[in-house]
Amino acid sequence: MLVTNLLNIRYLTGFTGSNAALLVHAADAESSETRTVFCTDGRYETQAASQVPELEHLIDRASAAELARRAESRSETYRRVGFESQHVTVDGLEELRGTAPGVELVRAPGLVESLRLFKDESEIEALRMACAAADRALAELIEHGGLRPGRTELAVARELESRMLDHGASGPSFETIVATGANSAVPHHRPTEAELATGDFVKMDFGALVDGYHSDMTRTVVLGQPAEWQREVYELVAAAQAAGREAIRVGTEVRDADSAARDVVTWAGYGERFSHGLGHGVGLEIHEAPALSQRGEGTIEAGMAVTAEPGVYLPGRGGVRIEDTLVARADTPELLTLTTKELVVL
Amino acid sequence: MLVTNLLNIRYLTGFTGSNAALLVHAADAESSETRTVFCTDGRYETQAASQVPELEHLIDRASAAELARRAESRSETYRRVGFESQHVTVDGLEELRGTAPGVELVRAPGLVESLRLFKDESEIEALRMACAAADRALAELIEHGGLRPGRTELAVARELESRMLDHGASGPSFETIVATGANSAVPHHRPTEAELATGDFVKMDFGALVDGYHSDMTRTVVLGQPAEWQREVYELVAAAQAAGREAIRVGTEVRDADSAARDVVTWAGYGERFSHGLGHGVGLEIHEAPALSQRGEGTIEAGMAVTAEPGVYLPGRGGVRIEDTLVARADTPELLTLTTKELVVL
Repeated sequence: MLVTNLLNIRYLTGFTGSNAALLVHAADAESSETRTVFCTDGRYETQAASQVPELEHLIDRASAAELARRAESRSETYRRVGFESQHVTVDGLEELRGTAPGVELVRAPGLVESLRLFKDESEIEALRMACAAADRALAELIEHGGLRPGRTELAVARELESRMLDHGASGPSFETIVATGANSAVPHHRPTEAELATGDFVKMDFGALVDGYHSDMTRTVVLGQPAEWQREVYELVAAAQAAGREAIRVGTEVRDADSAARDVVTWAGYGERFSHGLGHGVGLEIHEAPALSQRGEGTIEAGMAVTAEPGVYLPGRGGVRIEDTLVARADTPELLTLTTKELVVL
Repeated sequence: MLVTNLLNIRYLTGFTGSNAALLVHAADAESSETRTVFCTDGRYETQAASQVPELEHLIDRASAAELARRAESRSETYRRVGFESQHVTVDGLEELRGTAPGVELVRAPGLVESLRLFKDESEIEALRMACAAADRALAELIEHGGLRPGRTELAVARELESRMLDHGASGPSFETIVATGANSAVPHHRPTEAELATGDFVKMDFGALVDGYHSDMTRTVVLGQPAEWQREVYELVAAAQAAGREAIRVGTEVRDADSAARDVVTWAGYGERFSHGLGHGVGLEIHEAPALSQRGEGTIEAGMAVTAEPGVYLPGRGGVRIEDTLVARADTPELLTLTTKELVVL
């Protein structure tokens, strides 16, 4: 199998550079001989030697083509080679075919991704640290009065990101969302110069990147005494989120997990205001399998790391989303984002 | 032509969302009728209406497939459809073929990229602002004593990034490089906890993102009185960079521009220590065509925005890179990064 997606290569080998390819030989699993070969370019020669010590290395700028040449030159060893057809482009495949006309290239989409679905304990530890960086950033933001009338969404987003870096993040895991007042009704609002005001919902959706793993958390607070409708919407979303978390159990259909949260919102008459799925997998990507939604397929299994993030959005007024990152376990799921989900009034 | 690359869609329409496809009808150029259709998903309905008011919109999550369906259903209007074969994956093409079996899908790589090569004045203005944000960030960093012994590379990188945001950047245009002492000999060093020390070269390679356009600049300074070898290497790289800038003229082969800078370094006996090309195009991507290197092809034309960034790296001792972003003009190139290239001694 020729692996060319860099995240898949990182997953399989630990290599973190920006150019690489990996030719995995199926027989290596049952043999003491290693026929799997790694290729990167000259910039990463030293790094590859330390991160991928156990494999043979080739050094070439065109790393996938170089491995195709290797397969071509030893066609008795590499007769049929799978390729990642959901990542390799049409032109890329043409190039591989031209380089290795004697090799049978076979579509093999999603093989490494199907392994990445299940996080081992070292991956979960990275996710835990990423979630902790986000938890601590939000706690400090609030403690230092960072959420106050007159501050802009952009200033809050920058402070959250900066504090995550203070707590070991190598960066935000995606573009931080800070949405105040009516903006909180826009599910994926980007922070602007809009100022926080008394009476606003302030919705913050953000995460940290640690060792390549992404955390994802949303909290919504109120500035000043919440209005009756704000308490109602908040309590509704909190209840839906609790139901969603409860449903993240081994063997549950992803669709049913989504329904568990969605039904709470629908029964309260706000079904149409919950305009996205319950959640998604997180790991080396901020959005990965499984999709916890009505369109999703399959069941939840132990070791899957997912978000639970229902929301209710009332256009022109405001919206609430509450999101955690969790890991499905044999029994109850492990909660990785630990910030309170009680309504915080500032 | 079915355009699916988001940067190409942004270039053609101004749309900045994360899901879209565009079906461009060739006859639109010669007709008052508009048969070009734009598709995005429900999240971006409002945004698309304001950013792309002149086109018909379809709303569908699977935007490329939806446009393929449109082509299929009006096959008299869309008989042959080009697709971006350097971006569309093997699986993606299979899906399009399944959706639109009656449409002839033709490989058409690089068409929009060939337009993006030439920046118009509004694009150059965005690049100018992105370069100005980086210039001002560095000036302030130095003015406020941000480069001093005992500070870490990471702290300097964060301050540069933060100051670029203060000056209108929406983010850094790539991962900021700050490399001190021997680390400066690593061309693409990532900032670490290493501390700046007296006698160090400090190499900073960074840029700002403004309106989607990327700036790119490198400066190398010395902490404390420079040693003789440091002055020599610095003056050599500065001379090579000046030669490279001079060669960025309309009609010059990109290879010859690279040679102009490289020859200066080679004649001084450091040819092997200049281990990368002279530069690259910048625009909606931090690295785009043309490549100013010995492997590059074609000539420099008016409106191309490129970097000139020779470097000399002495393993274990230190290295110097000096980089500007420039725009090729009919006469002399326009320099967009304005920070001094005299050796700054701190």
